[in-house]
Amino acid sequence: MEKQTLILEKMITSLLSEKKYPSLRDILVTMNPSDIAGVFNELEQDRIPLLFRLLPKELAAETFVEMEPEAQELLIRGFSDSELKEVVDELYLDDAVDLVEEMPANVVRRILAQADPDTRKSINELLRYPENSAGSIMTTEYVTLRPAMTVGESILRIRRTGVDKETIYTCYVTNNRTLMGLVTVKDLLLAEDDDTPIREIMETHVISVNTQTDQEEVARMFAKYNFLAMPVVDAENRMVGIVTFDDAMDVMEEEATEDIEIMGGMSPSEKTYSRATVWDLFKQRIPWLLLLMVSATFTGMIITSFETALAAQVALTAFIPMLMDTGGNSGSQSSVTIIRALSLGELEFGDLPRVVWKEIRTAVCCGAVLAVVCFGKIMLVDKLLMGNDSITAGVALVVCLTLCVTVFVAKAVGCTLPMVAKKLGFDPAVMASPFLTTIVDALSLLVYFGIAKALLGL
Amino acid sequence: MEKQTLILEKMITSLLSEKKYPSLRDILVTMNPSDIAGVFNELEQDRIPLLFRLLPKELAAETFVEMEPEAQELLIRGFSDSELKEVVDELYLDDAVDLVEEMPANVVRRILAQADPDTRKSINELLRYPENSAGSIMTTEYVTLRPAMTVGESILRIRRTGVDKETIYTCYVTNNRTLMGLVTVKDLLLAEDDDTPIREIMETHVISVNTQTDQEEVARMFAKYNFLAMPVVDAENRMVGIVTFDDAMDVMEEEATEDIEIMGGMSPSEKTYSRATVWDLFKQRIPWLLLLMVSATFTGMIITSFETALAAQVALTAFIPMLMDTGGNSGSQSSVTIIRALSLGELEFGDLPRVVWKEIRTAVCCGAVLAVVCFGKIMLVDKLLMGNDSITAGVALVVCLTLCVTVFVAKAVGCTLPMVAKKLGFDPAVMASPFLTTIVDALSLLVYFGIAKALLGL
Repeated sequence: MEKQTLILEKMITSLLSEKKYPSLRDILVTMNPSDIAGVFNELEQDRIPLLFRLLPKELAAETFVEMEPEAQELLIRGFSDSELKEVVDELYLDDAVDLVEEMPANVVRRILAQADPDTRKSINELLRYPENSAGSIMTTEYVTLRPAMTVGESILRIRRTGVDKETIYTCYVTNNRTLMGLVTVKDLLLAEDDDTPIREIMETHVISVNTQTDQEEVARMFAKYNFLAMPVVDAENRMVGIVTFDDAMDVMEEEATEDIEIMGGMSPSEKTYSRATVWDLFKQRIPWLLLLMVSATFTGMIITSFETALAAQVALTAFIPMLMDTGGNSGSQSSVTIIRALSLGELEFGDLPRVVWKEIRTAVCCGAVLAVVCFGKIMLVDKLLMGNDSITAGVALVVCLTLCVTVFVAKAVGCTLPMVAKKLGFDPAVMASPFLTTIVDALSLLVYFGIAKALLGL
Repeated sequence: MEKQTLILEKMITSLLSEKKYPSLRDILVTMNPSDIAGVFNELEQDRIPLLFRLLPKELAAETFVEMEPEAQELLIRGFSDSELKEVVDELYLDDAVDLVEEMPANVVRRILAQADPDTRKSINELLRYPENSAGSIMTTEYVTLRPAMTVGESILRIRRTGVDKETIYTCYVTNNRTLMGLVTVKDLLLAEDDDTPIREIMETHVISVNTQTDQEEVARMFAKYNFLAMPVVDAENRMVGIVTFDDAMDVMEEEATEDIEIMGGMSPSEKTYSRATVWDLFKQRIPWLLLLMVSATFTGMIITSFETALAAQVALTAFIPMLMDTGGNSGSQSSVTIIRALSLGELEFGDLPRVVWKEIRTAVCCGAVLAVVCFGKIMLVDKLLMGNDSITAGVALVVCLTLCVTVFVAKAVGCTLPMVAKKLGFDPAVMASPFLTTIVDALSLLVYFGIAKALLGL
């Protein structure tokens, strides 16, 4: 919770207790809807409806959109039908769809009953698009113009119809619902002659997405092209909606969080940390921990099968953690880098040979430096300084050779796995450190004992 | 490299070889500047200047902004002074500043020499703001209005002065350079009466940032408030610039990448994977690998000091990797979650007790389930199925108790370290898995041998 929200919350709580409603209203109208929603999320539940009713109609709707689903549900359950209708009427269509997706069935029925028939039809259409598709995050409230309209007529049309549109700054020129081009309000305002037809000033090379396009891809296009809004077309190239930059920003943030959670060995969650309960966190984390614990059985089996070798050369055991950790770290450096590049659309499967070649050269450099430093460290610190006599030059050599090979293997596997995962249709982020570590651990132990047997004759 | 870019690159290369310049020009003008820049980045260097000269002036400047610094430098070195002036004149101020920051000194001198005196002065002012501050990413090209202007006068002013502004959609109302309020073009266009003075329709509760505000904080505010542009004020509350949403998106993407790189045990890099050389990757990765390898000396020392215990109970060695990995994974789940929440501004240091309490309860649940499953697995798979007689119920108990304690410690340390790092002014992301693993490894081994000594009497 942010400091500022904390102060506001205290102020608002005390004004509420003292029933100073006019002052409360005066404070609330100076605030941004996001900030008001932030305070609402921290308030005791029974105070929320009272405070909400103090907000002017438009600010109330804007605040409602920014609130957590729990608080939204609470409010709706307390609303009279006419209050609910007031809020629903003020919502942009994409926000209404988000709301309907979050609420339980009986609340959804009440919301849809209060929406006017056109809105209800549009909401139902938008709900049919697959989750995380462009269709599911778009809104159908945008300004359309005809190619034959003049600049002056277009400005008039915007002034007449713009009030309910999510953005008026990019206007789409359509003919029989087919997207012909776009003009911005900047183009219109800066046009030299009000009588110029739109067809002469419109941009005709319009970049659009399909209703089925993944929302991550849509967000990536926003970041690349710096658009305010992106038109969404259906399979017949008819324009059906727009995605606005603010929704793209939310998607960027969500997708980065999801990647980070998966890379950290967790199932992704839609809830923020503060909203997640212990049970949510447990469910998110335990499957991975169990899977990784059980798969570590292999490393245990490898060690068990080399028990006699380890008993003969006790010094070898002490280096197992260092070798495993360095292998894991080397591998995760590569996998994390590749996963991010895949997420940003910078790499594709076809780049695999180029990536592997780059990683292999990096691995050789890293492995060589690590091995040399490690050899020096073992001989100077572990043997001389700590006086561990069981460490011989042979043991040091085995450790350093293993280090080289492990780093090489870890980086090769670390860069390949995410790209192969992507090709096979899995989320590349799954191939990050926790999963990779298990593979690299087993491989590095096999290499270790193999080299030890060969060089030390165990 | 994206498939589409690949196809375009082939097409453009073949048209270039065949010297079909008019067709090339026809193709290029249909493309978005970002896509043209994408093709340029893949072309052979000597073809870039030729292709660039085919672009119409405005498109040339827009494409130039999207190109990689290497290609930009190449072009500038080949430009005549008048060509350079043409490009520099078309750049928005913040893009010019970005360019100057990337180029070597002699190129910068040429750029500044070609800029007109006002632009040169503004560039130099913007360069003085600290790196990654709001001042360093803002532009000074925005529309200002006076409180006494009418709606009609304001629209006229926008039409007259808007052409060089990065955005005209949010206009700032100032008095003696002090920020009084803002109006959007939507407000102006939808206003019912052209004679209404701006002071009556402007939004006066304006959220702004300071020139010194960190860019990460600025990006966070964009994501929260859905602004198109954010005003930047100096220490005396005078308006000095705006940050636009496209720059905020770039910052969001950069900061997420930086966090992910640091969490993956690397120094953050400004270069994309494709641009980074093997030497760049090596420099980014080797310091962490060395540091973590050397710090793994502790785990080695701990194992060495328990050599006799391990020799007496050889079965104990086989579980070391599983215990270390599970500890590492549990810890990184917590640290990664907390690091992301800190990055998104969701948590602050004051939340530490609440966070630790939540993590501890989660740890108890996870630890208990893991321990029970692990006990079953050891007794059924390792002992019965694999017939490993050195495994006793005592050993299984030691392993499972250690598992419980390790998960507990790992989650407690994993959630605390990032928050403490943030409080001390370090980047919390440094406290992610690679660093944490080293600490958790050592702790889990100490717990393991401690419990083994106590229970098995070694």
